[in-house]
Amino acid sequence: MAESWAIPGVDLHLEPSRAGGLRRGLTGALRDAVRSGRLAPGTRLPSSRSLAADLGIARNTVAEAYADLVAEGWLTARQGSGTRVADRAVVPQSGAGAAPRRRTTAPSAVSLVPGTPDLAAFPRTEWLKAARRALATAPHHAFGYGDPRGRPELREALAGYLARARGVRAHPDAVLVTAGFSHALRLLGKVLRARGVRTVAVESYGLDEHRRLLREAGLATPALPYDELGTDTGPLGRAGAVLLTPAHQFPMGTALHPDRRTAVVDWARRTGGLVLEDDYDGEFRYDRQPVGALQGLDPDRVVHLGTASKSLAPGLRLGWMVLPPALAEEAVAAKGHIDTVGVLDQLTLAEFLTSGAYDRHVRSARLRYRRRRDALAAAVADRAPDVHVTGIAAGLHAVLRLPPGAERPVVQAAVWQGLALHGLAFYRHERAVTEPLDALVVGYATPPDSAWARALEALCRVLP
Amino acid sequence: MAESWAIPGVDLHLEPSRAGGLRRGLTGALRDAVRSGRLAPGTRLPSSRSLAADLGIARNTVAEAYADLVAEGWLTARQGSGTRVADRAVVPQSGAGAAPRRRTTAPSAVSLVPGTPDLAAFPRTEWLKAARRALATAPHHAFGYGDPRGRPELREALAGYLARARGVRAHPDAVLVTAGFSHALRLLGKVLRARGVRTVAVESYGLDEHRRLLREAGLATPALPYDELGTDTGPLGRAGAVLLTPAHQFPMGTALHPDRRTAVVDWARRTGGLVLEDDYDGEFRYDRQPVGALQGLDPDRVVHLGTASKSLAPGLRLGWMVLPPALAEEAVAAKGHIDTVGVLDQLTLAEFLTSGAYDRHVRSARLRYRRRRDALAAAVADRAPDVHVTGIAAGLHAVLRLPPGAERPVVQAAVWQGLALHGLAFYRHERAVTEPLDALVVGYATPPDSAWARALEALCRVLP
Repeated sequence: MAESWAIPGVDLHLEPSRAGGLRRGLTGALRDAVRSGRLAPGTRLPSSRSLAADLGIARNTVAEAYADLVAEGWLTARQGSGTRVADRAVVPQSGAGAAPRRRTTAPSAVSLVPGTPDLAAFPRTEWLKAARRALATAPHHAFGYGDPRGRPELREALAGYLARARGVRAHPDAVLVTAGFSHALRLLGKVLRARGVRTVAVESYGLDEHRRLLREAGLATPALPYDELGTDTGPLGRAGAVLLTPAHQFPMGTALHPDRRTAVVDWARRTGGLVLEDDYDGEFRYDRQPVGALQGLDPDRVVHLGTASKSLAPGLRLGWMVLPPALAEEAVAAKGHIDTVGVLDQLTLAEFLTSGAYDRHVRSARLRYRRRRDALAAAVADRAPDVHVTGIAAGLHAVLRLPPGAERPVVQAAVWQGLALHGLAFYRHERAVTEPLDALVVGYATPPDSAWARALEALCRVLP
Repeated sequence: MAESWAIPGVDLHLEPSRAGGLRRGLTGALRDAVRSGRLAPGTRLPSSRSLAADLGIARNTVAEAYADLVAEGWLTARQGSGTRVADRAVVPQSGAGAAPRRRTTAPSAVSLVPGTPDLAAFPRTEWLKAARRALATAPHHAFGYGDPRGRPELREALAGYLARARGVRAHPDAVLVTAGFSHALRLLGKVLRARGVRTVAVESYGLDEHRRLLREAGLATPALPYDELGTDTGPLGRAGAVLLTPAHQFPMGTALHPDRRTAVVDWARRTGGLVLEDDYDGEFRYDRQPVGALQGLDPDRVVHLGTASKSLAPGLRLGWMVLPPALAEEAVAAKGHIDTVGVLDQLTLAEFLTSGAYDRHVRSARLRYRRRRDALAAAVADRAPDVHVTGIAAGLHAVLRLPPGAERPVVQAAVWQGLALHGLAFYRHERAVTEPLDALVVGYATPPDSAWARALEALCRVLP
């Protein structure tokens, strides 16, 4: 067999390394060809059958190499149009400004940016089964202009699930289905501003996009202090509301201290303020029982916000709010009929929840992510003993504490390695009230299984 | 067999008329029991097997009666929870204010309010097939935070379909997927206002909700004159934009006269104004080839807006815009990543379009709606010769011209008949520039097949 492989029809010589086996060699050579631009975006690759015949190797080997590269985002496969080089097989720039996880259509070759679960693990077969049941049983009128709160089937399923899994006290009537967390936050910003609220305090660490959404609604977003007990809500004063991630601070990864949990609810009762509880990854806890939702302490003063973006996939655009009775009507009116969410996805998620498929999927994902977390901790301990892995009791990301001054050069080195990676500075409030720290925020759930080992290796290479 | 049927477990005596056959008799008796409240919302009905056994009739007869009542919205059927009385089996109030078609979750027993196609005809099986193909072939990264414009597969499919079926000149990059028409209009309102536009002229007849959306964006919405050639855009002057329904004026049902089509495009070119083309039911034309989209005359000055709400179902929350290049970037930025639409519905619609299933569905729906239109015209000619049926060359509704002063009492009489029906006044701009007319707007596509004959009969009973 020749050491240089020609791809018929695209006139390209591949020089794969044979050391790691045929599949890996072919995958690597194709990846390099795409990365370097030798295979241009849109180029159609030969069928696995014909390439295998030309190379004298098993068709399966080629098919697997293609599948790996599709999973990594270098290639795309569509029935009828074959396998092609992806249009945007480029590594996104990591930097200031809007969060790259939101800008990226095709994923980078290797990304450890948090916010997206392993998309290759989306439970396609189970989802289709649930969709079939939903389509078979939905009443005709479900296909019409619906209730702005969302389908009753889904609100009922969510109320039951959230009570069971997160300790949320919810009547289906208090549940509002949204197109994800940001949509919910935008609605709440509108409602709070209309009530005369001028300030929604936020945490010293969080997503710039969330602060921007609140500011666009005309709300000030001052930062609360952060320390080893979590966010200190002591200075809240007369703020109208506070946005918190109590179960798993994003991105620091700590659970809000029980005293602080009680304190913020006391503040809300005393002042009439509201707590917006961002429960973005409450399903994923590894060390013990999940930290229950803050909403359970006072359903009249806490708005509970959840999403299917971490547990299933962001592409579904499905999230939910559990609203205090006093706020429900205004929030539903703010949503209205324009912001409704496709009814089939709603019915499918309802089936997914009630059939137990959601629990099964979360259990299996938790197991896989936990293994990755353990591998990350072990690799860092082994190869970068000066780096301290924190925030790993839960969630889909870890915080790697670095020696002072190391964050910026490490993130820069990652860019050169083709590794999308965020430093902690990316998540820091512009007026954060906390000691500056050098750290990396590593989303270990982000890569597909096929790219995880490579991502971890690339990370270890850039650590000090 | 007893003349009074007891439903086991719910202790209710039905006294059905036996004249029209068993099925009809049972259906009518059950309907009356629900309508009158004797069967309360949520009540679980006996299984068709056990009721049939109790009554000594064929199980199929009971199953068919149940199915009819489910289709009409009186009952709901859910796998696992049996057949129950619908929670909101009530006739919605027809009146001023927000459009009832938007408020209604469960349909009224009989509704002829336009805006919703026959939901019982949603192509569930074909949609599921398309969903299966979409799930089997989607690249993993499709499940992530996507391109705010929408999935490339759908934009490409829409560009091809709109070119072929509507004469739209569209590159996939100019297509923006939205959660329906209203969502698109809200985005455009935001973009236009940010450009300094202060006025978007509208038609003398249209939906109050559309005017409200534009006003919420800070835009004035003066009315243009309407006459027998359609909307007269002569007075546009320095308005920044105009919202039109050129192919099939809503609700009057006329096509914009060719001279007027040219005139409005000339106006846009001369002044730099924009035409917002609401092509809500362009697929449905009965008399000749569809009137092509205005956008074909000048893709740089016309924004083409379409929706799957009439051709498939409003519950999908799928619509689209084809944007002039100069507007595309701003519109995409206004949409951003929050307003994205669930990716599975997008991929499924793309499959539905490219596989030909969409065309097949539209053809079959067109045939059925045409038959209803013909039946409506014949029934009115026969039973109410003073009423003139207009606007029926296309679309899913007709305008029934009434003698002066008759509109209000007829709509009132319809309410008493349990028939949801809108008079023309419902759609009239508060400062309409046109001669007042007494008319009904009859959405003949709205009822399921099983209720159509009854709806038509109820309509004829209230006509003068």
